[in-house]
Amino acid sequence: MRGTVLYGTRDVRVEERPEPEIVEPTDAIIRLSAACVCGSDLWPYRGIDPVSEPTPMGHEYVGVVEEVGSEVRNIKPGQFVVGSFFASDNTCEICQSGYQSSCVNRVLMGSIGTQAEYARIPLADGTLVATPDIPDDDLIPHLLAASDVLGTGWFGAVAAEAGPGKTVAVVGDGAVGLLAVLSAKQMGAERIIAMSRHESRQRLALEFGATDIVEERGDAGVERIKELTDGLGAHSVVEAVGTQEAMMQAIRSTRPGGHVGFVGVLHGVEIPGEEFFSSHVHLHGGPAPVRRFLPELIDLIWQRRIEPGKVFDLELPLEEAPEGYRAMDERRAIKALLRP
Amino acid sequence: MRGTVLYGTRDVRVEERPEPEIVEPTDAIIRLSAACVCGSDLWPYRGIDPVSEPTPMGHEYVGVVEEVGSEVRNIKPGQFVVGSFFASDNTCEICQSGYQSSCVNRVLMGSIGTQAEYARIPLADGTLVATPDIPDDDLIPHLLAASDVLGTGWFGAVAAEAGPGKTVAVVGDGAVGLLAVLSAKQMGAERIIAMSRHESRQRLALEFGATDIVEERGDAGVERIKELTDGLGAHSVVEAVGTQEAMMQAIRSTRPGGHVGFVGVLHGVEIPGEEFFSSHVHLHGGPAPVRRFLPELIDLIWQRRIEPGKVFDLELPLEEAPEGYRAMDERRAIKALLRP
Repeated sequence: MRGTVLYGTRDVRVEERPEPEIVEPTDAIIRLSAACVCGSDLWPYRGIDPVSEPTPMGHEYVGVVEEVGSEVRNIKPGQFVVGSFFASDNTCEICQSGYQSSCVNRVLMGSIGTQAEYARIPLADGTLVATPDIPDDDLIPHLLAASDVLGTGWFGAVAAEAGPGKTVAVVGDGAVGLLAVLSAKQMGAERIIAMSRHESRQRLALEFGATDIVEERGDAGVERIKELTDGLGAHSVVEAVGTQEAMMQAIRSTRPGGHVGFVGVLHGVEIPGEEFFSSHVHLHGGPAPVRRFLPELIDLIWQRRIEPGKVFDLELPLEEAPEGYRAMDERRAIKALLRP
Repeated sequence: MRGTVLYGTRDVRVEERPEPEIVEPTDAIIRLSAACVCGSDLWPYRGIDPVSEPTPMGHEYVGVVEEVGSEVRNIKPGQFVVGSFFASDNTCEICQSGYQSSCVNRVLMGSIGTQAEYARIPLADGTLVATPDIPDDDLIPHLLAASDVLGTGWFGAVAAEAGPGKTVAVVGDGAVGLLAVLSAKQMGAERIIAMSRHESRQRLALEFGATDIVEERGDAGVERIKELTDGLGAHSVVEAVGTQEAMMQAIRSTRPGGHVGFVGVLHGVEIPGEEFFSSHVHLHGGPAPVRRFLPELIDLIWQRRIEPGKVFDLELPLEEAPEGYRAMDERRAIKALLRP
């Protein structure tokens, strides 16, 4: 089958890879209907996370179940399913508390590589959620978004305790940040401030429910948020970048007692203790437990109440994956969808 | 009047200081019934926080109101009152959300110095809580504890989301850590693990409700907590020290999705982003908003349901304050009460 493999900095190729097979009796094999390039794929693509050997890429996926292992009870061949970037058993104490991405038996899907025609999904009963029926084709990008970027933006908004009466600020205008805006809107936030200086992203943020746009960054961005909030700061701030500057912008934009939800994969970030102590901010985040939210997100999409797939502004056949990486690296595209 | 003044490293003196007067119409003057030495007073006493000029000391206090300013409405001369280490208006949006120690008009009581015969209390109506009557003398240490160490331990347990069914671990066996144990017990925690290697402190922890004692520190302490919690870590961990080692011990002892409440004043702490991202831990703390809890804590003490004043294992006349500092510095005493 065809699949993407990263060979080194900015060297991603589509090539023949072995077709996956059932390895564990809890596995399923799916035929991918769509896959995509993630903002986090850009860390190794840009060489910031070094790759030591050719590495299959991709951890977002929707598709049709082809085959299941002998111990899979609930997932059936022929179902259309959505999963997320960690396979999880959904039964351990950590899963049951809603942190499936820290499941005691978790498997990172990035190690499997879903930018491909087929993929093996470990712990299929715990990991996959079937849609009510085979979806119309126009729903596929929205369901694919649920697999990671929507689930991650949603977790950011949950971790930031977005809700009615709250002012929510979002640091980062990538797909996750934009979908954190959509999530905060769904959660009933009163005011949603998107921090962005890119016109096309601002437009999508407004469409997703942003009430204000702040173009300033760093300390100037913090000042602007304070001006908009009687000098106090936002109740809830989502950090969707992962750099030191973005994290400090998020903490400093939050009022005492407020909440920062951080979902950008942190790179080289150190949180200074004394400043954080004085800030009185709540800090929570990490790899989103997307599985917790999938049933609710699939339902919202199925009812056509949200359109998170609008973050895909570039659609390519799988064979042209390298152009998808380039377009995202150069910020020509917010997010690239790949059709196997 | 007599009061303590810190001149430099390990040089604290009791000397004549000017009697306080009403400065703002919202002030009150109280005659102190008792004051004490705080663990946080040891940072400047030991020279870790340098003092550049002679500095009046003390920020914990209970006493009788002598005089009030013209705009004080609720607090009356003759009342017995408890306050905390930040004066706060208790009316601003931040106070109303429960973060009085970040009040937009807050005044740090340490700048006033309550290890003295009298003290000026700014924002008296917001800051002070009157007891139902003049307390019996044996209640005074308990009420004094509410002023800071109990309120701080209580906030640590609240920030760590201690509660029924939870396993709570406490890092630090100073007065705050010990009272975090008492607080977790009051909140209904199922299991309370006190981390301590001092026999007298272990005994008090057990009396306050600890179910387990862990003597190991650092990574060995983390391992022990994991062993006691099916390999997962505690649901709730209170950090009551303020060092890098203690903070990392707290984060690493907490299960994914669990909560760290940190109340030790952080010194030279940097929280590593990548590790924190993977930990899935909630982090919240800072200067305790003791005022939020005072009515409830005074009520528990008045009903003789808790005896937080047991942390005072040394009582001295104010004139002997330097011995109180020495005893705490050398860990001969958990906490020293001073009688003016």
